[in-house]
Amino acid sequence: MSKLVPPHGGKGLVCCLLEGAQRDAELKKAEGLRKVEITSQEKGDLIMMGIGGFSPLNGFMSKADWKGVCEKLMLSDGTFWPIPVMLTCTDDDAKAIKAGDEVTLERNGLIMATMKVQEKFKLTEDEIKWECEQVYKGQGADSAEDAFWKVAPEDHPGVKMVLARKPFCLAGPVKVLSEGDFPTKFAGIYKRPADLRKMLDEKGWGDVAALQLRNPMHRSHEYLCKIAVEVCDGVVIHSLIGALKPGDIPADVRMKCIGTLVDKYFVKDNVVQAGYPLDMRYAGPREALLHATFRQNYGINRLLVGRDHAGVGDFYGLFEAQEIFDKIPYASREERIANKGKALQCTPLKIDWTFYCFKCDGMASLRTCPHQKEDRVILSGTKLRKMLSDGAEVPDHFGRDEVLTILREYYEGLTEKVQIKMQKFATGEEMK
Amino acid sequence: MSKLVPPHGGKGLVCCLLEGAQRDAELKKAEGLRKVEITSQEKGDLIMMGIGGFSPLNGFMSKADWKGVCEKLMLSDGTFWPIPVMLTCTDDDAKAIKAGDEVTLERNGLIMATMKVQEKFKLTEDEIKWECEQVYKGQGADSAEDAFWKVAPEDHPGVKMVLARKPFCLAGPVKVLSEGDFPTKFAGIYKRPADLRKMLDEKGWGDVAALQLRNPMHRSHEYLCKIAVEVCDGVVIHSLIGALKPGDIPADVRMKCIGTLVDKYFVKDNVVQAGYPLDMRYAGPREALLHATFRQNYGINRLLVGRDHAGVGDFYGLFEAQEIFDKIPYASREERIANKGKALQCTPLKIDWTFYCFKCDGMASLRTCPHQKEDRVILSGTKLRKMLSDGAEVPDHFGRDEVLTILREYYEGLTEKVQIKMQKFATGEEMK
Repeated sequence: MSKLVPPHGGKGLVCCLLEGAQRDAELKKAEGLRKVEITSQEKGDLIMMGIGGFSPLNGFMSKADWKGVCEKLMLSDGTFWPIPVMLTCTDDDAKAIKAGDEVTLERNGLIMATMKVQEKFKLTEDEIKWECEQVYKGQGADSAEDAFWKVAPEDHPGVKMVLARKPFCLAGPVKVLSEGDFPTKFAGIYKRPADLRKMLDEKGWGDVAALQLRNPMHRSHEYLCKIAVEVCDGVVIHSLIGALKPGDIPADVRMKCIGTLVDKYFVKDNVVQAGYPLDMRYAGPREALLHATFRQNYGINRLLVGRDHAGVGDFYGLFEAQEIFDKIPYASREERIANKGKALQCTPLKIDWTFYCFKCDGMASLRTCPHQKEDRVILSGTKLRKMLSDGAEVPDHFGRDEVLTILREYYEGLTEKVQIKMQKFATGEEMK
Repeated sequence: MSKLVPPHGGKGLVCCLLEGAQRDAELKKAEGLRKVEITSQEKGDLIMMGIGGFSPLNGFMSKADWKGVCEKLMLSDGTFWPIPVMLTCTDDDAKAIKAGDEVTLERNGLIMATMKVQEKFKLTEDEIKWECEQVYKGQGADSAEDAFWKVAPEDHPGVKMVLARKPFCLAGPVKVLSEGDFPTKFAGIYKRPADLRKMLDEKGWGDVAALQLRNPMHRSHEYLCKIAVEVCDGVVIHSLIGALKPGDIPADVRMKCIGTLVDKYFVKDNVVQAGYPLDMRYAGPREALLHATFRQNYGINRLLVGRDHAGVGDFYGLFEAQEIFDKIPYASREERIANKGKALQCTPLKIDWTFYCFKCDGMASLRTCPHQKEDRVILSGTKLRKMLSDGAEVPDHFGRDEVLTILREYYEGLTEKVQIKMQKFATGEEMK
């Protein structure tokens, strides 16, 4: 019997992906339906609904679900859910589509899914602003004292994407017909929840932690994972392989870094490498909750949450993404037990700011190291990128040599022009 | 409201210690009662019953409790308890004492408690052998294939103490009248469960780990504690301050080592130092369970259990003390919840064999380090003691310099004769 945490929502894995003859028939039908072009984010969300990663969701959200999620982190039936999962369409589409219709969802001309439209609605400007505030506004410098609306529309890639949505929302169940190029491009890394669960079951694990990763792995990430390995049955290094903002390191390079690190510095039995097809939303605390929610579907019951999880710029307090887990519906152990199906069962494994400390003679965190700033090796991502692209030496103990070599090669391979573009702050262009 | 785990047994802290006028009156009465001399182990057990450390026990065990504990790890009422807590007396005492009598318990002529004798019984030789096997026999080399009875009576200090018990057992509730010299000799370290709970409550902790310690603290112990600090609200370094076998380092020296280590290498807010008045029984797995049981009374819900916890010689498998937690009554999370009062609620925080690894560039364990033996700094206690008493250099990264300096001073202070005595294997003499 599986010792893994059950999928979120109490309905098992809800998978909307069709395969074989069913898929062929649906594809044929899809050709004849009205086509709605979707964004990269919607595509990731759709694939997650296909493979059960977004259980218990079986489609894009109704207005009631949208409202409940924004306001109370709950679907309209009371099930915990932290972030709206919306499908939007143009005025033209909206004119042609009515509730009850079936439509085809396409990305760059490729059929991704069909959808039975149950509801068509328009969010007002005020409602959209409210959504942005509810979901993306934090307690960091960029969100403080009404600064949010001065900077977010330009500087927050998540808010930017909400504001760039098309005017109408379509809600209803989907039949997913494609996983895009994830299964081929990330063969061996891209795993459906059922596949990962099978792997974990075969290992006999029950207490499984995940590291959410959208960066190459340095000593700090390694340390988080190793703490998890010490206290859990094992850790899944679970990388985002969907789209990021420009300047972030592409998934294939990250996979190479992680593969090398696991090979040289981990006991292989205790670690699993995998990837999931979502785009980053950079919603900080709310996204940490989303990361925990879909992890539960993958059989993971603890999410490593470190400093500024899923953050961007200065929008969030450094540990806001840890604190939010204590404020959600059904947050206490008792409520989690009493509301098995509705409550989030994947809990955070909270770790403080980590670094190498010379006096500690190893990795440490602000919770364990009593020493001074000058005893510690701390490096910002920006500074590291500059060192790597300049070919400069990275301070000892910050990263593993084998990983830094891969990153150096990557940065050297970029033309100067691309490097400048990469270092410029996100325009969000890549994510549309 | 306290976030700490409730005391074991569902009856709150059961404290048999009298204070003030009640104590004065009982002391007066005690003078006139028959005196029974107790052992060092019985004294420690008695003080624990006095201060609530052995809740829900309020006295020494009846035959039914003894049998249940040996056989099923349960008191006769079904409450989990891992180790017999027995009071024995001589034939002469037994002749003079009958059920219903009150007696005075003395240690070295000092009145420790009074006891209402509810039951007087004699264990047969077979029953005592059975107790030794049930409680002290493990799966290590010294217990394997009937080797147990060849070596244990000489080499196992716990078995030796059972075999040295007096012929009759007395069972019944106690009124404790003294905490011995623990409060003065270990001022600031010796803490009653209620005192420690108050401290932990003031810190707002709810998820509290303890390190059981009977040795000076080296990097490995520090690493265990620091893992706990990373993932719990904080850690209690909880040292045994009762009697040990000869060759172990005395409590005052250990306290000095720990104090120095905490001062230089810990964030003080996240660690508490404390001591408890029991003697070691060296019962390995069963003693690990006892360590967890009384920790629960101190407000601690997780016990760090490393390699060969509470072991001696080769009697136990290296991780037997971890595995036993999965085999006890009410072991599963569901059973623990369903049997709140009766089940052990303090769970193990299991950590594998730990060491410094040059390739890992820090502390690691067999779960996290994939490297070779020669990359690791591993030192046996015996080898370390020899290096320290010879004034030889201890390998880098094994211990903290400040701690090694204290130990070196201690060993240098011992005369050669005493050193030889210390290095000889336990005779158990000190513990009687």
